[in-house]
Amino acid sequence: MLPTAKIINDPVHGFIRIPEGRVLTVLNHPLVQRLRRLSQLGLAQFVYPGAVHTRFAHALGVMHLADEALSSLSRKGANIPRTTWESVLIGALVHDIGHTPFSHSLERVILPYSHEELGEMLLRLLEQEVGDLSEVHLIWQGQHPLPFLAELLASQLDVDRLDYLVRDSFFTGVQEGLVGTERLIYTMTVHDGRLVVEEKGLTSVEKFIVTRRFMYWQVYLHKGVLGAEWLLRRWWAALVQSEETPDLLLHLRNAEPKEALRVFIELDETRIWHWIYERAESTFPPLRALSRALLWRRPYKVWFLEGEKQSDRRSIWESTLPRIARPWRDWFWLEGEAESQAYLPAQGEAIRILFKNGHLASLTDVSPWLTGLSIPMRKPFVGAIPAAWLESLLR
Amino acid sequence: MLPTAKIINDPVHGFIRIPEGRVLTVLNHPLVQRLRRLSQLGLAQFVYPGAVHTRFAHALGVMHLADEALSSLSRKGANIPRTTWESVLIGALVHDIGHTPFSHSLERVILPYSHEELGEMLLRLLEQEVGDLSEVHLIWQGQHPLPFLAELLASQLDVDRLDYLVRDSFFTGVQEGLVGTERLIYTMTVHDGRLVVEEKGLTSVEKFIVTRRFMYWQVYLHKGVLGAEWLLRRWWAALVQSEETPDLLLHLRNAEPKEALRVFIELDETRIWHWIYERAESTFPPLRALSRALLWRRPYKVWFLEGEKQSDRRSIWESTLPRIARPWRDWFWLEGEAESQAYLPAQGEAIRILFKNGHLASLTDVSPWLTGLSIPMRKPFVGAIPAAWLESLLR
Amino acid sequence: MLPTAKIINDPVHGFIRIPEGRVLTVLNHPLVQRLRRLSQLGLAQFVYPGAVHTRFAHALGVMHLADEALSSLSRKGANIPRTTWESVLIGALVHDIGHTPFSHSLERVILPYSHEELGEMLLRLLEQEVGDLSEVHLIWQGQHPLPFLAELLASQLDVDRLDYLVRDSFFTGVQEGLVGTERLIYTMTVHDGRLVVEEKGLTSVEKFIVTRRFMYWQVYLHKGVLGAEWLLRRWWAALVQSEETPDLLLHLRNAEPKEALRVFIELDETRIWHWIYERAESTFPPLRALSRALLWRRPYKVWFLEGEKQSDRRSIWESTLPRIARPWRDWFWLEGEAESQAYLPAQGEAIRILFKNGHLASLTDVSPWLTGLSIPMRKPFVGAIPAAWLESLLR
Amino acid sequence: MLPTAKIINDPVHGFIRIPEGRVLTVLNHPLVQRLRRLSQLGLAQFVYPGAVHTRFAHALGVMHLADEALSSLSRKGANIPRTTWESVLIGALVHDIGHTPFSHSLERVILPYSHEELGEMLLRLLEQEVGDLSEVHLIWQGQHPLPFLAELLASQLDVDRLDYLVRDSFFTGVQEGLVGTERLIYTMTVHDGRLVVEEKGLTSVEKFIVTRRFMYWQVYLHKGVLGAEWLLRRWWAALVQSEETPDLLLHLRNAEPKEALRVFIELDETRIWHWIYERAESTFPPLRALSRALLWRRPYKVWFLEGEKQSDRRSIWESTLPRIARPWRDWFWLEGEAESQAYLPAQGEAIRILFKNGHLASLTDVSPWLTGLSIPMRKPFVGAIPAAWLESLLR
Repeated sequence: MLPTAKIINDPVHGFIRIPEGRVLTVLNHPLVQRLRRLSQLGLAQFVYPGAVHTRFAHALGVMHLADEALSSLSRKGANIPRTTWESVLIGALVHDIGHTPFSHSLERVILPYSHEELGEMLLRLLEQEVGDLSEVHLIWQGQHPLPFLAELLASQLDVDRLDYLVRDSFFTGVQEGLVGTERLIYTMTVHDGRLVVEEKGLTSVEKFIVTRRFMYWQVYLHKGVLGAEWLLRRWWAALVQSEETPDLLLHLRNAEPKEALRVFIELDETRIWHWIYERAESTFPPLRALSRALLWRRPYKVWFLEGEKQSDRRSIWESTLPRIARPWRDWFWLEGEAESQAYLPAQGEAIRILFKNGHLASLTDVSPWLTGLSIPMRKPFVGAIPAAWLESLLR
Repeated sequence: MLPTAKIINDPVHGFIRIPEGRVLTVLNHPLVQRLRRLSQLGLAQFVYPGAVHTRFAHALGVMHLADEALSSLSRKGANIPRTTWESVLIGALVHDIGHTPFSHSLERVILPYSHEELGEMLLRLLEQEVGDLSEVHLIWQGQHPLPFLAELLASQLDVDRLDYLVRDSFFTGVQEGLVGTERLIYTMTVHDGRLVVEEKGLTSVEKFIVTRRFMYWQVYLHKGVLGAEWLLRRWWAALVQSEETPDLLLHLRNAEPKEALRVFIELDETRIWHWIYERAESTFPPLRALSRALLWRRPYKVWFLEGEKQSDRRSIWESTLPRIARPWRDWFWLEGEAESQAYLPAQGEAIRILFKNGHLASLTDVSPWLTGLSIPMRKPFVGAIPAAWLESLLR
Repeated sequence: MLPTAKIINDPVHGFIRIPEGRVLTVLNHPLVQRLRRLSQLGLAQFVYPGAVHTRFAHALGVMHLADEALSSLSRKGANIPRTTWESVLIGALVHDIGHTPFSHSLERVILPYSHEELGEMLLRLLEQEVGDLSEVHLIWQGQHPLPFLAELLASQLDVDRLDYLVRDSFFTGVQEGLVGTERLIYTMTVHDGRLVVEEKGLTSVEKFIVTRRFMYWQVYLHKGVLGAEWLLRRWWAALVQSEETPDLLLHLRNAEPKEALRVFIELDETRIWHWIYERAESTFPPLRALSRALLWRRPYKVWFLEGEKQSDRRSIWESTLPRIARPWRDWFWLEGEAESQAYLPAQGEAIRILFKNGHLASLTDVSPWLTGLSIPMRKPFVGAIPAAWLESLLR
Repeated sequence: MLPTAKIINDPVHGFIRIPEGRVLTVLNHPLVQRLRRLSQLGLAQFVYPGAVHTRFAHALGVMHLADEALSSLSRKGANIPRTTWESVLIGALVHDIGHTPFSHSLERVILPYSHEELGEMLLRLLEQEVGDLSEVHLIWQGQHPLPFLAELLASQLDVDRLDYLVRDSFFTGVQEGLVGTERLIYTMTVHDGRLVVEEKGLTSVEKFIVTRRFMYWQVYLHKGVLGAEWLLRRWWAALVQSEETPDLLLHLRNAEPKEALRVFIELDETRIWHWIYERAESTFPPLRALSRALLWRRPYKVWFLEGEKQSDRRSIWESTLPRIARPWRDWFWLEGEAESQAYLPAQGEAIRILFKNGHLASLTDVSPWLTGLSIPMRKPFVGAIPAAWLESLLR
């Protein structure tokens, strides 16, 4: 265990110890502090008003669980050098620094990169200021001599998912999402260099997989949440199409990669809200309406299509539209598909269970009923800004 | 009980029922939705990363507790007409609409009014759109024929305090703040038209008072929280003194009351963060440094003075200042006093305990040990931006 | 809602209201108070030391959830007369009065009836003292004109299961068993006179079924729990076979039904423990050893057979037996099979989901992955009192 | 940290590690396993039906907190040899083995010793079987070279009180009793060989003291609990006075100390309940009535006297007595005094706070308001078995 510099009180995990030295330096870096202004769940707070927790708190939580897991694995005999231990904690802290505002809603839209790619670039930037982080790179790229470390941070049973499930459950109030992290971490062990779960942790793993499914449908793909996230995406489209695109974005478009990155860092949710305010009186009606819809919480109402035709839903909705909304109706109508897959049973990615007799088995072989959760589930949906709101949104 | 329009999941209280009709209309109004962008505890999240909960969630919580209390009082025989019941819930929902961003840090600074005064003005604005709210005014001004309603919303044992204690405790993770709201509400009753607590609720009331004290020192007047709040106040002072005051503020300064109010509504924390970003490269060094200190979380470090002289602290700190910080050192030094008083025992405001034999007594008469918590506690403090940060903040 | 006589504080559900009148009379009856001396989970406390909760607390919990469900169904339009409401609460309170000590371990062994049959007989006894309970009989026998009441008390989604899952989870500390009872109850509704769950409760129902499975393997069929329950059954067998059978049992054997019932009522766990104490020095060695094993917590160690032959396990164990144990080894060896089925999808018993469009579907049709949990799961096992204990147990 | 033999799931603290070796041996000893049949709160379950938790679970909890505290003190530099560590855990496990059944209700009544004296004798007995426990004796007698170990196990801020407050709160459902054990333990440190609390733990200590007071009045001295405990004491008096005293007790009376101890060990609550059953048809009316009152839960109703005369209460009650109860009325009437003192500020026993500047202060000097809780509080009371029950109790 690394010597403690300070203790932070987290409502989810209790007291979180921050080790002194490099980990504290990284924590204090502006790139990590920026995560205080990124929400973990974007506009899910339109449905769950408590769910305003930040990526910063999540990063701390992931670091904490990684620390707990390393302690447990050490007690079981894994030999983890002190600098490696630090690298794992740093890897946990920075795993989300490449995130765009509002969770996945605007990913690849502001800059044409995934949050993982941006994360890699920013990690290099960070390195220039806090010193060599090559071991963190090694872990993230799956090339560390101790391969279980990469699995601890990024696999189907990693500390990232553990923290976000329990944290999102805590802040939304959705009790279906509670997972006993303590037991899961206690039953992880290293076998042939890989991370596996001991037989006695089987129920906990099953529960973890099922919980993912529950959280998908109760939160991540909740109709109200989809309607809120698409409101933001549509607003962005209107912003770009209008003649009121913020200078910062125009600048970003033509910037060199390095400059683009510098600008990107300054882009957090508070800035986007400012732009939303400024466009609440835009001359471009869709932008005006969608800005107000964000400020006043008037999201798309979403229907999953089950048997119905989407054209039926649309014509019902269109028949009630006020005159002022007619020319812009395409902006206020939505079509999409929600998809989830609680577990990927594919070879090489599967969670492995270690039996007392030394036998190693893939999770779905031990618990065949989980196979039903491995099938991707797709639900087409449509959505519309309720006609009753449109008058005031467009006026 | 009013008919339910929708149910909202709150992590603190569980399911919150929103009654249909006027209450729902008020909830959906932009003035109430704006509270989603005001944090309940301002920059306390610099110390407690989970404490990013909003005034909107608090408003829902207060409304919920008011609803529970009215149900309980009804069962005990209080006759509360349906429209009055609605007015109480609306009064709960809007009790904080006059709040400036960042809790009390900037109160009376942006506009020369308290949040209560602004609340009254905004309530009149709201009335123009959702219809007569005169009964809400009556309750808030303490002139309603059922005086216990005002006490339920604003007294030393009101649903406002009940919600914020338990909510702030939940989101900070400070377990010392947990209060059993259910029992307190069950033991409230109406006696001679006034709100009193039955004898069997005495322990719960004692706990409530003690908890206020604990939360004062663990959260509201925590050294780290004071240092963060003062960072914001000093930044504001620098902003106003600089030549980079935002147009919106200049406009606000000279605006008619009605126009001032319109602008005020658009002022939430996301806008202020935007201004902070824009001034991170300000030509006025204190503004530049304080903007970065906010973005990077570099608050004043605060010391309570116990026997020491503040001049000693200051000279130690000054001796370590980098050259670049010397001319501006007054900006980075702080002097103040924290004050708390867990309970005001004064006649007319005291919490009253009703005994089974009909006897009514003031709380501190029944529980004299609480008198010790009625003495205002004052702690002078000084604070400074740590010298080690100043180079990069000013560069 | 019925007028409240008193409030009981329950750690699981919080405040439980006891209505005045017949419900209170039944609660105070010795037949119900006897449940205070029956543990809900028998000897599961050998594994989970916190799990010493009683059938009495469970009965209160079931009554409370029934009350909550009736309130919710009333708000949705169900018309439930006051006396019927009382009958449902009484039905909940008495649903387990026919239980033998130590949960199901000794069921049908002490008297040749199931706990349901004994319950019916005792209900008639109760009736003689508290007045007509014919409506309770009607509900329990599924012949009440409001058939959903019987489903509320006894079906695959009844308040009995809801309470015991959450209660057993609470007292064992097995977090995998937590179920959000509030949401499940809120989404129940009456359709064509039957109890169904609204579409929006689907996730909660899925979670409820999965939780049953988790609790089966973590608690009810846990190896240590099986070993403890079989210890008690074997002890009973030794007791009956010995010449030290308690007079009360001999009397019971030959008693008329009415007298048998009178005696049965006096048989709770405290008496059986007394008999265990008295036989700790029995001259019949197996009885002596098993009595001590109960007092000193020396249960059978259980192995689920996976591929292995049970004869292998047995011969390993036998080879280590002390000489003194050899003649009695059959008493200290165990063979059995654990079985669970989280859900019975059969027509007529299936949980039904009601969609917004009025469509009604069987749970496994909506959530096919639950079919995997409908397959009965059987695990053969063997068990043995560890040889190392036998010397001192037999001495 | 000692190597782990097994993990036990506790609903209060989560996973409790049991170290292999001597600690496990002691845990498995019949003297410790006997604690499974002693309830922590005696008949408080007459008021709080969930409060049936055992002294065994409490012993585990105390051991766990002691282990946590030793780990924390070690990290802060205290040097605790492995055997000493074991001795502390054993000391925690056995701290209550001398307890009589039903908590303090029958203390000094069955045998003329306090539970501490009996504990010392039994510890010597234990020693004969598990080997040298002299270091445990040293700690318990306050003569260990590391004096803070004794303070950890028995002082005004020991792990015993920490566990029972939080455990009793958990199982009663009385939220006023929750204490954050984690923070309290983290802020303990060793100063000049003595256990002190760091300044930053002050609020937690204050909360701990206040919580003791709350639990006294909500649980330990609750009117209903007093009435239940006195029912048991009076029953015992009737038992002894009758001609139906159990042989075991008669034997105990005349036994040599060693034999008395052997018998004492076999005396747990299950036996006493058996005696109660057997005397439900006693020919001595008070014994018959009090036995049934225990089985059927008909405790004394208790009134705290506030201004009233007890003779008034008594004459009101007597006037309603059925004829059959008159000759025995003294048995059904009760007079007593409840007393509590949340904190003893006396020199030598006071909790000490260590400030950052090295200054050491007594708790009430730092927080004078706690002085109000140091005054012993006495409440005289009377009690009576309600007349309405007496007919059926005596019949």
